[in-house]
Parts: sequence; structure tokens; C-alpha cells
Amino acid sequence: MPLSPGYNMSQHVVNGDSSCGKVLTLDNMNPNVKRVEYAVRGPIVLRAMQLEKELKEGAKKPFNEVIRANIGDAQAMGQKPITFFRQVMALCSYPELLEDDKFPDDAKQRARRILKACGGSSIGAYSASQGIECIRQDVSRYIEKRDGFASNPDNIYLSTGASDAIVTILKLLVAGEGSNRTGVLISIPQYPLYSATLADLGAVQVNYYLNEDSCWSLDIPELKRAVTEARQHCNPRVLCIINPGNPTGQVQSKECIKNVIRFAKEERLFLMADEVYQDNVYRDNEFHSFKKVLFEMGSEFSSTVELASFHSTSKCYMGECGFRGGYVEVINLDPGVKAQLTKLVSVRLCAPVPGQALLDLVVNPPQPDEPSHATFMKERTTVLANLAEKAKLTEEIFNTVPGIKCNPVQGAMYTFPQIKLPQKCHSTEAGQEPDMYYCMRLLEEEGICLVPGSGFGQRKGTFHFRMTILPPTEKLKIVLKKISDFHVRFTKEFSE
Amino acid sequence: MPLSPGYNMSQHVVNGDSSCGKVLTLDNMNPNVKRVEYAVRGPIVLRAMQLEKELKEGAKKPFNEVIRANIGDAQAMGQKPITFFRQVMALCSYPELLEDDKFPDDAKQRARRILKACGGSSIGAYSASQGIECIRQDVSRYIEKRDGFASNPDNIYLSTGASDAIVTILKLLVAGEGSNRTGVLISIPQYPLYSATLADLGAVQVNYYLNEDSCWSLDIPELKRAVTEARQHCNPRVLCIINPGNPTGQVQSKECIKNVIRFAKEERLFLMADEVYQDNVYRDNEFHSFKKVLFEMGSEFSSTVELASFHSTSKCYMGECGFRGGYVEVINLDPGVKAQLTKLVSVRLCAPVPGQALLDLVVNPPQPDEPSHATFMKERTTVLANLAEKAKLTEEIFNTVPGIKCNPVQGAMYTFPQIKLPQKCHSTEAGQEPDMYYCMRLLEEEGICLVPGSGFGQRKGTFHFRMTILPPTEKLKIVLKKISDFHVRFTKEFSE
Repeated sequence: MPLSPGYNMSQHVVNGDSSCGKVLTLDNMNPNVKRVEYAVRGPIVLRAMQLEKELKEGAKKPFNEVIRANIGDAQAMGQKPITFFRQVMALCSYPELLEDDKFPDDAKQRARRILKACGGSSIGAYSASQGIECIRQDVSRYIEKRDGFASNPDNIYLSTGASDAIVTILKLLVAGEGSNRTGVLISIPQYPLYSATLADLGAVQVNYYLNEDSCWSLDIPELKRAVTEARQHCNPRVLCIINPGNPTGQVQSKECIKNVIRFAKEERLFLMADEVYQDNVYRDNEFHSFKKVLFEMGSEFSSTVELASFHSTSKCYMGECGFRGGYVEVINLDPGVKAQLTKLVSVRLCAPVPGQALLDLVVNPPQPDEPSHATFMKERTTVLANLAEKAKLTEEIFNTVPGIKCNPVQGAMYTFPQIKLPQKCHSTEAGQEPDMYYCMRLLEEEGICLVPGSGFGQRKGTFHFRMTILPPTEKLKIVLKKISDFHVRFTKEFSE
Repeated sequence: MPLSPGYNMSQHVVNGDSSCGKVLTLDNMNPNVKRVEYAVRGPIVLRAMQLEKELKEGAKKPFNEVIRANIGDAQAMGQKPITFFRQVMALCSYPELLEDDKFPDDAKQRARRILKACGGSSIGAYSASQGIECIRQDVSRYIEKRDGFASNPDNIYLSTGASDAIVTILKLLVAGEGSNRTGVLISIPQYPLYSATLADLGAVQVNYYLNEDSCWSLDIPELKRAVTEARQHCNPRVLCIINPGNPTGQVQSKECIKNVIRFAKEERLFLMADEVYQDNVYRDNEFHSFKKVLFEMGSEFSSTVELASFHSTSKCYMGECGFRGGYVEVINLDPGVKAQLTKLVSVRLCAPVPGQALLDLVVNPPQPDEPSHATFMKERTTVLANLAEKAKLTEEIFNTVPGIKCNPVQGAMYTFPQIKLPQKCHSTEAGQEPDMYYCMRLLEEEGICLVPGSGFGQRKGTFHFRMTILPPTEKLKIVLKKISDFHVRFTKEFSE
């Protein structure tokens, strides 16, 4: 960790005039924070916000609106919230409505149950730090129903979105100095929360590459290579998996998950399974949770392999990102470490209670004998069917464009196509990655906001972008057409 | 940082059998996390939860309920939410209610405005990472009205409660190694979020003691002593102030704040002002924000001293802890550092949108010409008047008890009386702090849950506890009586 001159200055100029400089500067601030990168909300998004402001103020652009296909934010793209969920949230917010005939009985029953579990029967009270107990019980029942194996509510921690829980578990795992520093294996391409958090914690990022040629598969020999090389310079202890994949949209087979679990056991790696897209599975693919597969493998594995599995209210069919609800289930965590985890989450008091309440509805939705069931199922099915259709459409259209190659979107809500960029453009702008330049041009010319592949990591010499499949179908068709035309135009410009 | 044997084991047993031990153990986990302590939710609270469970299951105890006076959680203690706030939250959650005649027009107008500022007009969408723009503008207007000085919405960052923003700003400031490591001055007694965060970040905690004999005043010579001694072993760069004080309940005079600002400028310290109790000011005391005093001191100070000021939806008259709303205003932050701050908060995507919405109502409540104004004012005034009455009551009753000495509760929602404990009890239980033993006995015998002074820090040889003044008046009287009787009994037991 290099020390910049700023440190010495601020240490010695004890009684100096502060006009000579700030106490806190780029030179003397936390160097780990400087290393953090988060492309999903990076310079392209800042520019998109500017463009939106300019359009609002009447500026003339080649487009009338900026389409934000950079972030998995379903409701911002026009997806309607699930009626039942929002009814219960209104009831919890303003319990006077419990007397209102307009609300169905099952919504009222859920609200009453949640309120009863809150301090002072109010979602304005803090909850227990680990989360409201009856909600943790509901999460456990949901997991048991999903997997067919027991789940202990004591192993559930409610969180501020999945991100919060992921950061907390990583924080427990980071220790050691120098070549003994914790190494964390993450997929490339990855969701940049991981690289950002590892930079922030000063952990060692260990890359394993997904195999783009076989639909972003996770291959054990590549994991082996990564962990073996990492052992030369750090202490790899953690293996992070995102399934269904973000940004890559693959869904892992049960066989693949088994192999990963076996590998983790052999190599003594703590498994972190980011499964926030567990309902976003299209075509004939099926989601298998790591927990389920682990327990199917028998007690040799299920009683030893340490696993943390994450879920969220932000994705799937509900897309309730703003509520920041989520949970982690920990399996085989050392009891002493678990006590430390409980202590650590208590410092931030508790996850937002509205988000906890919403999570309760996700894991305990209307049942077939309840009045809201039919509407709930219809809304849920419509969203997921639309996403499946858009996943197919995206792949089909992109694969008709020369120079764009797109794997099937088996799950999640993104496509991560490879784009062939002309050699000339590889060095066009000073210091700018070619895919960043490409995306910035696309934004300026068509008003479409994507994230360059370099923000997620990609094999050297290959270029990609991430696009969400969330815009409404008719708008998505226009977006796909515009990107396709832009790609042809851009390629031509640099090939001349 | 001592390395434990665990490190080496996990590094060398590469292909070993995992049954020989966990990947993650107390020995090899993040040592900073182990150093974290957070007494407000510590062993006493865990025992209180157990006792509640036992009571529920029919166990016989010397009490019928556990009274949680350990945490500033107003609604859990029976305080009712502000009607207007919850009406708007219900409307935002389920916008179909905007057609309902039951809701007043100003509540609907607020909800429409908030929804319009949300992606897809939904609080289920992510917001901008810094927070919803129109809410940041409202926060600025609130600050301008409070202080009489300009506030720039670009300097406002919305957060997940104040805790989140405090941790984020501290994180920016922590750098350097060894004797160059960032030192952070915090008051003793302190709110343990600070010590916990400093442990987590591996920063150096630098204690300055509040003067209990003059109503927990903040004296400059003591600050000078603390910073001078700290310079021998670290790089003190930050001065944290809690005003009104937690756990100590003092309200600082304008003169004191001026002196602190002058001191910070001379000593080149970044100021962090935790002002979450800004409406909780009783008797003839007046709250002065650090921002206002800084700007009253003229441009020599207002254009140089770096300040971060924090506020929250959790305290004051609203007590909406569960929503986790808050903000920080940064003043004179280096533009490069500010860009890093914006980047850093983007990794967690955004603060919970319901909490942002609630914060908007706090900073922009019903105005005199609006239909909800009268009710709002009545609710607000009642809460604050009750708190003022309970603050007085608490001081008066405790000061009648021999061996309890209690400063006036000028502000916030806690009392932190000094308790004289007999010499015999100083070494009664193996390794347990005497005040921890005292509080644990009180819990077991009377069902009252307090936090021992050792959880906040106190001068060696003195003992305290923190108690909230939040129980309803009649219950508070019983609590005060029970504690008084217990104190006499306990003292007698150990004096014999």
C-alpha cells in the first residue's frame, strides 16, 4: 500500500493554516475506496442522467428519451408491482386501513401478522438485528418447500437487499496479511458488487473465467487453475457463484453444481451462492439451489461444506428493488463465527422493516385457498412469461447481426453479447476501453444506456456489453433494432 | 495484528479433509470484526429476549413483562406514528388509494410528488445512489430554513439511517499504517456505533472525556490533551461530536460549538456532527447546528472547515426507526473525494426508498395552510412535551436516591446517571464489569433492560447505566421506582 505525500503533510502541519489544503484529499483518503469500481452506475450512467436533464430542458438530441437498459430495475422499466404485496404494505404503513372493506382478507391477515411481530405493532420500530422472527420462520419454510430439506430460522439473517448480506459475509472471511491474505474466487464476467467489495475490504480478487463458448459454463479445470495459481500469492478461502448468472444469464445444471460443491470441499473453500434470480429461469432450464444439491449429496457434504446462500426482493417477478429486502441462509457456519455475525449485524441495528415485510410476502405469497391467489398468480405468470419471451427475442435478434454473438439468455434478466470491434477502434480514445467508447457513442447517438463488458471483466481482447431485457416488448424491439443498426454503422466507420 | 495458528493450518491443509475443521473459524476470521462491540444490543438484550420467551411460555418470574429501556425505539415503547407520515407512506405503497376520499389532499399531493420522482413512478424502483433528487432538494430547504444559510442539494446524500452515512464518511477517512494510521476522536461516553465502526475499519479510537461534573460539557483543554497524546502513536484527523448527546443527554451551547470549530480548524480535524436528536431539546436549551455556527463564524471558517452533519428519521418526534431513513450533508469536501463518495455509495445501489420518502415528510411536513397541519402539530407537540416531562421526572426521581447522581436530561432521549457501587461488588463475578453485573441483576429481578455504562465508556472507577426516557409516563414512574428500590437493595447487599 503506497503512502502518498499527503500523509506526511497532514501529520506534520499540526497547527498550520487549513487554507493550505483540505484535511481529507484524494491523496490521503482510504486507498481501498479509490480502488473500488462499480460500472453499473459508472460514467455512462452519470452521462445518461445529464442527457435526461438536457432533454427535460428542451435540448435537441437524436432521441426523445434515454432508455436505461443498464440496471436490473424492473419497475423503473414499467413493470407493475404485485397488487397483493402493495396492499399489505399499505396496510402495514397505515393500519387504520385494516378497517377498510376495499382490502381482501388475506392481505389484512398478512398485515396483522407482520404488525403483531413488530415492536409496538409498528413497522416504525427497530426489529431484532437478525430480522423479525416470524419472517425468518417464513423464509425457512419457503426454503424447505423449495428444496425438500430442513432449514433452521436461526440460520436466516434478513438484510438490506442481497448486497448488504454479501458484503457482511465477505467481511467475516477477510483476514491475514501479504501472501496469507484471503483470496476470493469470483467469476469473470462478474457482478461488480464483488470486485468493489473485495477492493474495499482489501481482499485478493481471484478470477475464474466462465466458458463463453459453451454458454458461459463453469468448468472445474478452470476453477482448479485459478485456485492453484492464487495459492502462490494469497490464501484462497472463498468461492462465489452467481446462479442464474449476472451478467451472463446462464443457468447451472445440477451436475455442474455438484462438481462445484465437490471442488469446494476438496479445496477447503467457503461457498457463497448468489441466487437472487432463482425465479428468473426461462426455456427448459431449471433452477437448482446450492443448498438443495448440497443436501442431496449426503451428509459427507451436507454436514461439512460451509455455504451462504443469498436472495432478494429486487429481482424475480416482483422487482421490488427500492425496498432493499433480502436474506442470507448460512449452512455449517462455525457457532463462534455465527455469534460474531449476529454481533456484527447488530451494529447497524436492523434491516429496513418495510423491506423485511415485503420479503415475508415473497416467501409466503397468497395460497390457492385465499382470495388474492388468482390475481397474484396471473400477475406473476405474466411477468415471467414476458421475460421469457424477451429473453428469446433478444438472443434471436442480436444473433442476426454480423459481429454480435449472443448466448441464450437461460435465466436472470440480462444479455451479455460479444461484440467484434474493428482493430482501429481498440486505441481510439486516450485511455478509454474500446467497449466503453462504443457504449458512450451508443448513448450519445441513440439514447440507449448499456454497461460496457469491461465493467464486469472479460477475456483480454474480447468485448461485450450488458443489456437488461426489461424494457416492454415493443420498446425492446426498438432498442434491439437501434443497437443492431448502430453496431453496423460503428463497425463500418472504423473499418474504413 | 497477531496471527493466530488457524491461519497457517488453513493455508497448508490444501487438500485435507474438511472434517478436520471449518474453513472459517473464530481463529482465522476477520480480526477487526472480533474487536467490534455493540452493547446496546449486547448480552443483556439477548438475555432480555430469552426472558420474554420464557414468560410467553408461562415461566414464573418476579415480573410480568420485560421493559426495554435499552434502546431509543420510541414506537416499540408505544409512541404512535405521525398520522400524516403514514398516510403518505400508504399512498406511495399502493397508489390506487390516491382515488380514495379518506385521505387528505396534502397527503395525496406529497405522495404524487414523491412517486413522480421515482423510476416508473414506483417506490419499488432503485433511486439514484445519492438519493431521489427532489428529496435532496427538500432536505436542503429544510437545512436553509433551520440555519439561515444556503445548502446545496449536491452536498446531500440520503442514507440507510444515520448509521450508514456515519460509517461511509468514516470509511473515506481511514488510511495509513502504524503511527500514521487515522485516529478518530470520539467522546467518552460515546454511542457505540463509533467504537464498533472504528474497530471494524481498523482505525485508532482516540478518547476525549466529557465533563460529568459540569453536565457532560465538552471542554477544549480535554480535546487538546486527547489530540496531543494521540499524535504520539497515530494521525488524528477526525473529531466526532454527538449533539444533543447520546448517551449523556447534554445540549451544547453556541459558544462551545464555536470553540470546537476553532479547535478543529487549528488542529486540522475533519468534523463529524451527529445531530440526529436535533428536535429532542428540553427545558430552556436550544439546538444549534454545527453548520449554522460554522457559517456564523465567517468565511475564514465556513469556506475551510470540513464538516459532515448527520440526521435521521429514527429519533426526534417521529421515531421511525424501522424505515432506516437518514442523510448526511457534507461541507467543504474536496471535489475529488466527493466523487469517490458518490462512487462508493453507488455500490450498494441506493438507500431504501420508503425511508427516503419518509425523510422527505420529516423535512417537508404539513404547512400552516394545509389540511393536515393542525393534526400534525398537535401530534408533534404532544410527543415532545411528553418527552420533556419525562426527562424532568427521570432526573428528579433518580437524584432522590442515595448513590445515584443524574445530570439534567437537556436533550436526546436518555439518562446516564452515575451509580456508586460498593467496593465489594467491584470484583464479584469473574471478569464481569460491575455495572454489567448490576444491570444483569436488575434484569433478572425486575425485568428492566438497561445498558451498562461500560458499553459506552466511562472514567475508570465510575459506573453508570443508560436508560431511555421513552416508556409512557405511568410506566416510566414504575420503572424509576423499581430501579431506585433495586439500587438501595443491591447497595445494601454488598455493603454487609
